Amino acid sequence: MEQLDKLEAHFKRLSHFQHLAAICGWDQATMMPDGGNHARADAMAELALYCHQQMTQPELGDWFADVDEKSRHLSATQKASVAEMKRQWQQASVLPDTLVKAKSLAGAKCEHAWRQQRQDNDWDGFAKNLKEVVALAREEAHIRADQKLCAPYDALLDLYEPGMTAERIDEVFGALKQWLPETIQAVVDKQAQQPVITPKGPFPQAQQKALGEHVMKQLGFSFEYGRLDISTHPFCGGVPTDVRITTRYDEQDFTSALMGVIHETGHARYEQGLPQDLAGLPVGQARSMGVHESQSLFFEMQLARSAPFATLICQQAKQAFNRQDDPAFQVENLHRVLTEVSPGYIRVDADEVTYPAHIMLRYDIERDLISGKMEVDHIPERWDTAMQQYLGLSTAGNYKNGCMQDIHWTDGSFGYFPTYTLGALYAAQLMQAMRQQLDVDGIIASGNLSPIFDWLSQHIWQRASTTSTDNLLKDATGETLNPAHFREYIQGRYL
Amino acid sequence: MEQLDKLEAHFKRLSHFQHLAAICGWDQATMMPDGGNHARADAMAELALYCHQQMTQPELGDWFADVDEKSRHLSATQKASVAEMKRQWQQASVLPDTLVKAKSLAGAKCEHAWRQQRQDNDWDGFAKNLKEVVALAREEAHIRADQKLCAPYDALLDLYEPGMTAERIDEVFGALKQWLPETIQAVVDKQAQQPVITPKGPFPQAQQKALGEHVMKQLGFSFEYGRLDISTHPFCGGVPTDVRITTRYDEQDFTSALMGVIHETGHARYEQGLPQDLAGLPVGQARSMGVHESQSLFFEMQLARSAPFATLICQQAKQAFNRQDDPAFQVENLHRVLTEVSPGYIRVDADEVTYPAHIMLRYDIERDLISGKMEVDHIPERWDTAMQQYLGLSTAGNYKNGCMQDIHWTDGSFGYFPTYTLGALYAAQLMQAMRQQLDVDGIIASGNLSPIFDWLSQHIWQRASTTSTDNLLKDATGETLNPAHFREYIQGRYL
Ligand SMILES: [Zn+2]
Ligand SMILES: [Zn+2]
Repeated sequence: MEQLDKLEAHFKRLSHFQHLAAICGWDQATMMPDGGNHARADAMAELALYCHQQMTQPELGDWFADVDEKSRHLSATQKASVAEMKRQWQQASVLPDTLVKAKSLAGAKCEHAWRQQRQDNDWDGFAKNLKEVVALAREEAHIRADQKLCAPYDALLDLYEPGMTAERIDEVFGALKQWLPETIQAVVDKQAQQPVITPKGPFPQAQQKALGEHVMKQLGFSFEYGRLDISTHPFCGGVPTDVRITTRYDEQDFTSALMGVIHETGHARYEQGLPQDLAGLPVGQARSMGVHESQSLFFEMQLARSAPFATLICQQAKQAFNRQDDPAFQVENLHRVLTEVSPGYIRVDADEVTYPAHIMLRYDIERDLISGKMEVDHIPERWDTAMQQYLGLSTAGNYKNGCMQDIHWTDGSFGYFPTYTLGALYAAQLMQAMRQQLDVDGIIASGNLSPIFDWLSQHIWQRASTTSTDNLLKDATGETLNPAHFREYIQGRYL
Repeated sequence: MEQLDKLEAHFKRLSHFQHLAAICGWDQATMMPDGGNHARADAMAELALYCHQQMTQPELGDWFADVDEKSRHLSATQKASVAEMKRQWQQASVLPDTLVKAKSLAGAKCEHAWRQQRQDNDWDGFAKNLKEVVALAREEAHIRADQKLCAPYDALLDLYEPGMTAERIDEVFGALKQWLPETIQAVVDKQAQQPVITPKGPFPQAQQKALGEHVMKQLGFSFEYGRLDISTHPFCGGVPTDVRITTRYDEQDFTSALMGVIHETGHARYEQGLPQDLAGLPVGQARSMGVHESQSLFFEMQLARSAPFATLICQQAKQAFNRQDDPAFQVENLHRVLTEVSPGYIRVDADEVTYPAHIMLRYDIERDLISGKMEVDHIPERWDTAMQQYLGLSTAGNYKNGCMQDIHWTDGSFGYFPTYTLGALYAAQLMQAMRQQLDVDGIIASGNLSPIFDWLSQHIWQRASTTSTDNLLKDATGETLNPAHFREYIQGRYL
């Protein structure tokens, strides 16, 4: 169909520019000298503007209308392709330019000031800027909600996790809240009885890198189609044929970089495993942020922190650092190190048991901020209450390690936080289903993990965005999101 | 003036896209895994097409016409800015799309086949493709010549060395031919009497890199605005605020990478030294390929292979490789190593005394190919004759080390070769003028070379393309190109 061809050609052309943006973005974080930043930022902004213009070209509307009229002639994949193109087009087109600009200005101002305000524990200064950001996010949410005929917060969720609603998250997180605080306490009490020997550095960076690359290969990362580098904030970037993952090395603690590398390898394999015949099309992209995180957490949590994988890591780490006789490198001890649970203030440092607590409290707050049920001024109090309730920690007056610790809200990315925990729930559910079909522990112990990756490839990676997250889960596991699997998994591993 | 503002805004916007192309091009040569090549090539081609479209937008013609009418109100820099924008616009616009496409196809075909044909010494196969390339280059030259009202080959020269003509090169190279072959012979005879101890490897890559970075700093390269990396074919890329130079390391010979790094540092300082207030405009770019090469050769030949600089290198190399007592690292010996002259087949391996011979023979051939005075079939014979005449070497039947050694002609880049030797002549002339004002040897010996760089910055770097090469030379040295300085320099250093 002519108009469909036009649409797909248009989005494929756009993907070439997005390719260049991805590589230059990676370069900015890993390679660029400081002095290059100003000109680079200008160049990237020019490219972003051009991509936005291309994404919102007026003729697209006509093409979509034409394709919709004849949609009964389309195959299922074609229908999905149209739907995904339309989703990106509508998301890009619906906001008036004035709002986009105001959002960008307020976000940049808030984020810039936050870097200092966080250090100074200056809540009042931060709150002033955040109010502007929240006001614009509410405006954005309303406009998007009018277009999608849904609730305002759901319209923001849809940017990161299409199809997800606050109603569904309330239900899922509600179940979590029932058992998680008690479980955390029980795990902490249990682990207090089990002594852990912390591996002592130094672990030279070159050896850590070699170990990381070794494990990446074992996890099927293709260095023919990707790289590992260093950046301050680890990420997975690039394009599916050239996936760039990064880490940072702590010479006193090799596990942080290693687990980070394994996490990003999960993201990377999803990207490397996307179907080539849909390359350059929205339908050929990863399904959602939550599904993306399910893959990184599957690799990091379900696989790499399991007992049989700890045995593999143990052998390799002993060799890499020449610690054959170090008691900290005995397999049982190392597994305990990899599964230590410890309630703390900082989300990014949290283990998998306490992590959902950090997310649930942020979700409750941002949902009510967007709906208008609460205001910025009440964030610290609510934060403190939830931290006490979930983790037994007070953040009263401690803004920098409380509600000012994350960058997400500073530029108005409301709706993003829940995807971290949705990813953890998806991962547990996928593993549960996989175990029905595969002897997962035996496969890990064998060192050849291909059957595991084949399963993920078939059920997740190769399907890209050809169907909804609900369908993806149903086809892979027999049911849509069921948070009971996460409970079973956590209590099984830790209690 | 409104139209001038529009023009400059247009070219500055374009420079942002060229920035991204430069970084992604660097990435392709230094960082990209092999598997990324296909998608990257597509993305880069899309960007190149977009840049071409932007460069040839129809409204530019009206804007230029308008500006020309009011040009008496423009400052000298504004006039130069208009002239340089116009030059780029005309160069991009004059060729019909069909010819651009045919050129690109024939060039890609010829270059691709050449990679194997060169290995196979397959002249007949190569000649067949090259004929197509030459036919299209002739067509291109005629179209460009009609636009510029000049001779066809001069129109190609103008792409690389604006203002230069075959008539002028004939004159300059004619003078060179008078004395160079005899001088080469005399230098070879003289050096045969002076034993040289070749430094023996291994020279570990990490130590070579540290030495290179040390020398780069001494040469004023700013790592705040640039990087050093590795690529198969060394180059200087990136953008003025983020200059990316590359090298390759031979663990048996540290001088090749070191001298290569110094050469690229000359290119880099020119880029880093361009005027910031003209950034993003054609008038703010380097003057020409020849002037660019004059800076790299000034650094590599005039500075780094001089006796006082050899003393600096000697100290640093001894330390870097821990060779305090190695007789190969005695300063006199090292200087001999750095100034060894040896006629050979391969241009890129040539020393500065024999290098012009390689260029002159290529120039004679390409000039006559474009004018139609000779045909592709006669290249090998003419090559052999010239090699025997200039360097006493026969290339009869040895195509791969003769007329098939370079990539330049495969994609039709005729007019480029002369800029290498023009650069060497400019460099010698600049040094001669500098010596009238500065105690160059004393400055080098002091280790603080700033006065030399300040001189280059004032006379070359800061002037960018605000005036012609002729004027640049006249203002810096009191005369336009005078090849006598190169003769004096070569005979002074080597005889
Ligand atoms: Zn992640
Ligand atoms: Zn050069």
